Amino acid sequence: MGEYSIGVDLGGTNLRAAAIDRAGTMLEKAEGATPLSAGPDAVVADIVASILKVRASGGAERLVGVGIGTPGFIIMDKGIITESPNLPGFENFAMRDEIERLLQAPVLLENDANAAALGEKWMGAGRDVDDLVLLTLGTGIGGGIISNGEVLHGFVGMAGELGHMTVIPGGNPCACGNNGCLEKHASATAVTAMARMMGLGENLTAKDVCELALAGNLKAQVVFERMGVALGMALATLVNIFNFPLYLLSGGVLPAWELFAPAMFDEITRRSLVFRHTTTRIEKATLGNEAGLFGAAYLPFQSRIIAP
Amino acid sequence: MGEYSIGVDLGGTNLRAAAIDRAGTMLEKAEGATPLSAGPDAVVADIVASILKVRASGGAERLVGVGIGTPGFIIMDKGIITESPNLPGFENFAMRDEIERLLQAPVLLENDANAAALGEKWMGAGRDVDDLVLLTLGTGIGGGIISNGEVLHGFVGMAGELGHMTVIPGGNPCACGNNGCLEKHASATAVTAMARMMGLGENLTAKDVCELALAGNLKAQVVFERMGVALGMALATLVNIFNFPLYLLSGGVLPAWELFAPAMFDEITRRSLVFRHTTTRIEKATLGNEAGLFGAAYLPFQSRIIAP
Repeated sequence: MGEYSIGVDLGGTNLRAAAIDRAGTMLEKAEGATPLSAGPDAVVADIVASILKVRASGGAERLVGVGIGTPGFIIMDKGIITESPNLPGFENFAMRDEIERLLQAPVLLENDANAAALGEKWMGAGRDVDDLVLLTLGTGIGGGIISNGEVLHGFVGMAGELGHMTVIPGGNPCACGNNGCLEKHASATAVTAMARMMGLGENLTAKDVCELALAGNLKAQVVFERMGVALGMALATLVNIFNFPLYLLSGGVLPAWELFAPAMFDEITRRSLVFRHTTTRIEKATLGNEAGLFGAAYLPFQSRIIAP
Repeated sequence: MGEYSIGVDLGGTNLRAAAIDRAGTMLEKAEGATPLSAGPDAVVADIVASILKVRASGGAERLVGVGIGTPGFIIMDKGIITESPNLPGFENFAMRDEIERLLQAPVLLENDANAAALGEKWMGAGRDVDDLVLLTLGTGIGGGIISNGEVLHGFVGMAGELGHMTVIPGGNPCACGNNGCLEKHASATAVTAMARMMGLGENLTAKDVCELALAGNLKAQVVFERMGVALGMALATLVNIFNFPLYLLSGGVLPAWELFAPAMFDEITRRSLVFRHTTTRIEKATLGNEAGLFGAAYLPFQSRIIAP
């Protein structure tokens, strides 16, 4: 009898679940909106419903467990979300125990960026390595660090806050209290803010700015060069710290790769002696927004928890 | 029958070796000058002689192996030093194999800052944790990362180049090709350079600047405040990345702790949300310049290599 697990990707907008077997084949997927405004109990009920929906696809195979990727800080040993700007109302919510109770199956909770990094390691661009760093370039910037094939958690579970690495000491103010955080200079939000400051328009999306740049708009091109420089500074520091073989980028800004990558690589080359001395790869992630689903589903396989 | 190992700390100036048993008791120590100008063969002969000297103290106990801490980049799987400004003439020298040949015993090579971090983990300030980062504040700044009780090496062996983290993007030029490396703003060399620029004197040592500051010299105090700010920026980034329970500082600048620590902690607090949310400890290392000896001696115990 084969084994499968269920991965859940809980976002502020979408809620997705998938049944995935040990070989990484997706057996079934369910997708819907996250009923955030209805509160934690409604969200949990939807999570459980979507798990039960994809569970049927497992047929006679054994369910190893359920993994859930969620935004915010997670106290790993307690399965509690302590802080999550993208999930208002979930502060100090005992997500893991509540879902275990309703589902009568073992549940593992993981930060969404960590889950995405693990997914890329299992079935994506990082399949051939045991150590990698993933940066997700979206509204903010998330980070996931895979060391020896496992998520690096730190002692509380807050490791990988790579969006809050300082890249420009006197740079843009961040809600975290710092100035010059990476996510204030290289996220989709940073791209649109820079475009606004350069007079390109008030209501542009990062995609709009990307299209302007590709059409030859010099100001829009400068936006992505600056973004690439900030990203390169952070990556240079990460390469000097970890000397990992692979660093992956994903998220909504990824389609602008050709626009920001040259400045990014220039900056890394200049600022990292480790990069210059090694064959470090800095590449696009390949699983897109399914990385988190795969990573969440991989958690039960990795932890060897067996469902009753 | 008990077991012991031999640790060697090879520096650009001093060469030390010690026999240490499994409980961490130093059985014997040998210390001398490193005969650098006589070339690699002379240095290797002295390393072997100092190992044989302390080996006698092991008596009937079983020698588990020999660990050697050395400055520079080490290609771990080959036991070769690729680049070491502090050991001229050793570029691409097959240190490990040469000493194994002369000694007829298994030898493990490790970067000196990594060895110091491991020593602090085994017998120093990090005894109660499995994860820590050590920064050695000397002529340059070295770094060692201990994750799950072991040195984090990266895929080549170059991880932990923490002295080359960028803290001030347009800062002081570094020999590595970057501007604003941590070691250009927070090492003993940076302290004396800042003191010189502020007109405190041309030939001061970091110790002189420290004494001036303690005696009330405002310019000297500003030097250490700036050093503390740079250190705090790097530590904030490390805390956000690793969420480890412990970060240790050691090296020649450590006696100035009271002068730089307040600015350092201010900066970390402001720049790291992970620091503010956790009980992260940032402390002085406790083994001083014996950390590298202990760490080197711990390598054979950790790797379970058995001597013939």
